[in-house]
Amino acid sequence: MNWAGIRFDEAEYAERERRLRAAMTAHELDALVLSDDRHTWYATGFGDVGPIGSAARPRILVIPAAGAPAFYVHHSTRTTVAEMSFVADVRTYRELATAPMAEIGRFLAERGARRIGAELGGGMRIGTTVNDLDALRAIVGELVDASPALWSVRAIKSAAEAERLGSACAITSDAYAAVFPEMHAGMTERDVAARLRAAMSERGAHSSWVWVVSGPGEFDRIDGVTRERVLDDGDLVFVDMGACVGGYWADFSRAVVIGRATAHQREMQRLIAEVTMIGTEALTPGRVTGEVARLVDAAMAERGLVFSSEAGRYGHGLGMVVTEWPDIAGDSTVVIEPGMVLTMEPGMWTHEGMFHCEHNVLVTPAGNEILSRFPLELVETS
Amino acid sequence: MNWAGIRFDEAEYAERERRLRAAMTAHELDALVLSDDRHTWYATGFGDVGPIGSAARPRILVIPAAGAPAFYVHHSTRTTVAEMSFVADVRTYRELATAPMAEIGRFLAERGARRIGAELGGGMRIGTTVNDLDALRAIVGELVDASPALWSVRAIKSAAEAERLGSACAITSDAYAAVFPEMHAGMTERDVAARLRAAMSERGAHSSWVWVVSGPGEFDRIDGVTRERVLDDGDLVFVDMGACVGGYWADFSRAVVIGRATAHQREMQRLIAEVTMIGTEALTPGRVTGEVARLVDAAMAERGLVFSSEAGRYGHGLGMVVTEWPDIAGDSTVVIEPGMVLTMEPGMWTHEGMFHCEHNVLVTPAGNEILSRFPLELVETS
Repeated sequence: MNWAGIRFDEAEYAERERRLRAAMTAHELDALVLSDDRHTWYATGFGDVGPIGSAARPRILVIPAAGAPAFYVHHSTRTTVAEMSFVADVRTYRELATAPMAEIGRFLAERGARRIGAELGGGMRIGTTVNDLDALRAIVGELVDASPALWSVRAIKSAAEAERLGSACAITSDAYAAVFPEMHAGMTERDVAARLRAAMSERGAHSSWVWVVSGPGEFDRIDGVTRERVLDDGDLVFVDMGACVGGYWADFSRAVVIGRATAHQREMQRLIAEVTMIGTEALTPGRVTGEVARLVDAAMAERGLVFSSEAGRYGHGLGMVVTEWPDIAGDSTVVIEPGMVLTMEPGMWTHEGMFHCEHNVLVTPAGNEILSRFPLELVETS
Repeated sequence: MNWAGIRFDEAEYAERERRLRAAMTAHELDALVLSDDRHTWYATGFGDVGPIGSAARPRILVIPAAGAPAFYVHHSTRTTVAEMSFVADVRTYRELATAPMAEIGRFLAERGARRIGAELGGGMRIGTTVNDLDALRAIVGELVDASPALWSVRAIKSAAEAERLGSACAITSDAYAAVFPEMHAGMTERDVAARLRAAMSERGAHSSWVWVVSGPGEFDRIDGVTRERVLDDGDLVFVDMGACVGGYWADFSRAVVIGRATAHQREMQRLIAEVTMIGTEALTPGRVTGEVARLVDAAMAERGLVFSSEAGRYGHGLGMVVTEWPDIAGDSTVVIEPGMVLTMEPGMWTHEGMFHCEHNVLVTPAGNEILSRFPLELVETS
C-alpha cells in the first residue's frame, strides 16, 4: 500500500531477476555491478519514480552468477530499503559521495566473479564517480560493457510496465486535447509548455517533459530549448512531450496552428502522417529495426519527402528513460519482439512548420497497439 | 528575450570563463573537458534549466589554457547552439549516443594540453559513457580530477545566480505557507507532495522536488521515498523540498502537525530551531566548515540532543544541483566565502517526529542573508 504506484509486486521482481540472470548467461557475465539508480530501482524495488537528485549516496547492486545479489546503500536509507527492496542482502556504508568499492571488490572475489559487467556503453551512464569505478577496476581488473545485456532485458516490458506506459501516453493525449484548442496569439512558447505540464500533472503525471518550437521560419532546430518567443496568428506550434507515470515515460509530438492552417501545412502533415502510419504498422514481431527504417525511407522518397528532422533515427525504445535501445535506424539489426515499446517518428521541417507526428506503440504477439491515441492531424484553433 | 529566464547575460559568461581559467591555473590544468550538461550550460549558455533527459547526444566543452574553447554538439542542435552559446567555436557531430573523442583528442593535442581535467570525482557525474571517456584516455593519457577546480568556481554564486536561488527559496516558502494549513487527516503523503508541487509550479517554479514522511513511529528513514501512507489526526508531517527557478534549486525542510502538536513535539522543534539558528549565524566569511560543524555539535550536546538525521553532514552547498560542495562536516576544512549559498540542517528523530528545520543562506561580505524565510516553528492545522 505504502509503495503503490512506485514498486511492482514480488513476482515482477522475481521475473526481472530471472531475466537478468538469463542475459548474464547469454553474455557470459559472472556478475553485474549496477549503479544507475534506474537499474537499482528496476532490479530491487527500492527507489522512486524519478532518479535521485543527489550524487551524495550512490546505490550499487551486485548480482553474482553464483549466489544471491547484494545491495550497497547508505546507512541513512536502511529502513526504507528494508521495506522496499526484494533483494534481502542489504549492506550499508556511511561515507558521503563515494561508494564502498573495496567491499564490493571483496564480495565479487568471494563469488569467484571474473567477467564483471557494468554500465559502460550503449548510451548508459554510471551512478558513481569515475574515480570510484576506476577504484573498482583497480581491484577486480577490466570491467565488461553490460549495456547489451541490460538493454535486452529492459527492452521487453512486462504487462505491469506496459500498463504504466499506457497510462503515461493516455495522460499525454488528454493534455494535448485539453490545451491545444485553448492556445492563442500572445502566449509564449514557455506559457504553452507550462499549461501542458500543468495539464499532465493534474491528470496524475508524476513528472513530465515538454519541448515547444513555433514559427514560421524557426523549425531548423532539434533538441532545442523552449523559448519565450511570442506566438502570432498563423503560427504553427510544434510540441514534443511526455508524461511520466510510475517511472515510465511517454514521448510523442503533435502540432497546432493558431488560427487556420495553410494548404501547404495541411498537405505536409497529411503526408508525414501517412508515412508515420506505414512505419507504425511495420513495428511487429520478427521485423528487423533497420528494415523498418528502410521501409520508412522508401515511403518518404515516394512522396518526395526528405528526412530532415536530423535526429539520426526513425524511432527508439521507450521506458524508464525517454530514449532507450533499440534505435530504429538503417544500420540497426535488432529483431522486434512482443513487449517492446517503440516510437515511430519520421519528420521534416519547412519554413512553415515542423512536420513530425510521433506514435508510441506496444508490440504485441499479433502486431502492435498504438498507445499515443491523440490524432495525428494538425489541430486548428479557429 | 527568447532565452529569458534560462540564459544569463554575456558579462556573466565572460566572468565564468575568467573564473574557470583562474581555477585551471590554480590547479595546474592545461585543459578542461566538461560533459556534465550542467557544466556545458553553465559555461556556454546553451542548454535548459534542467538536464537533458536523453543520453543520445552528449555535449562536450573543451577549454584549453592556450586558446579559445571548442564546444562539441550534435548536428541537429546547431541552430539553437548558435543562438544560445557564447562559445563561438561550435563543432558538430552526427553519431548517436557517442561523443567524438578522436576529434577532441586531436584538438587537445593541437593545443598542447597535457594535464587535462575532467569530472572524475567530488560527487560529480560524467555526461558521456565510460567507454567514451576511456577512448579519450586512450588518446590523451591519464585524465586529472577537475572536481576541486570546478567546485571552487561553482561554489561562489554571482549576483544573478543568487537572485535565482532567492526566487527558488521564496517560492518554496510561499508553497509551505499556502499548503500546510490546508492539510488534513485522510490525505496521503503523496497527496501532500502533489499539492506542494502544484503550489510551487503555480508560483513559477520550473521544476521541484518534494519528500514527505509522516508518523508517529516512522521517522527512522532518511532519503526515503514519499509513500501512500494515510495521514491521521495528530500525525507530524515532515517535508523536505525545493523549487527550481532558472536552473537553481532551493532545499529546506519544515513540518506540520495535523491538529495540535504535543508538548514533546513543541519542545523538540524549539530546541532544534535554536541549534539551527546557531549554525546559520555561523555561516559567515572566514569561518571554516568543519569548525561550524563542531560548533553545531556542541550546541546539540548542550541541549542533550543526538544528531540522528544520519545524513552525515550538517549542511552543504546549493545551486544547479540540490547538493553541492562544500559539505559542512567535522572533517571539512573549506573557508566560507561571500557568494556561497549553503544549507544548515541539524536534525534528529524520535517516535513523535523528525525534528529538522533547514535554512538556506547566501553568504555576504557582512555575514549572511537567510533565503528560506518560512518560519521554523511547527505549523499546526487547528
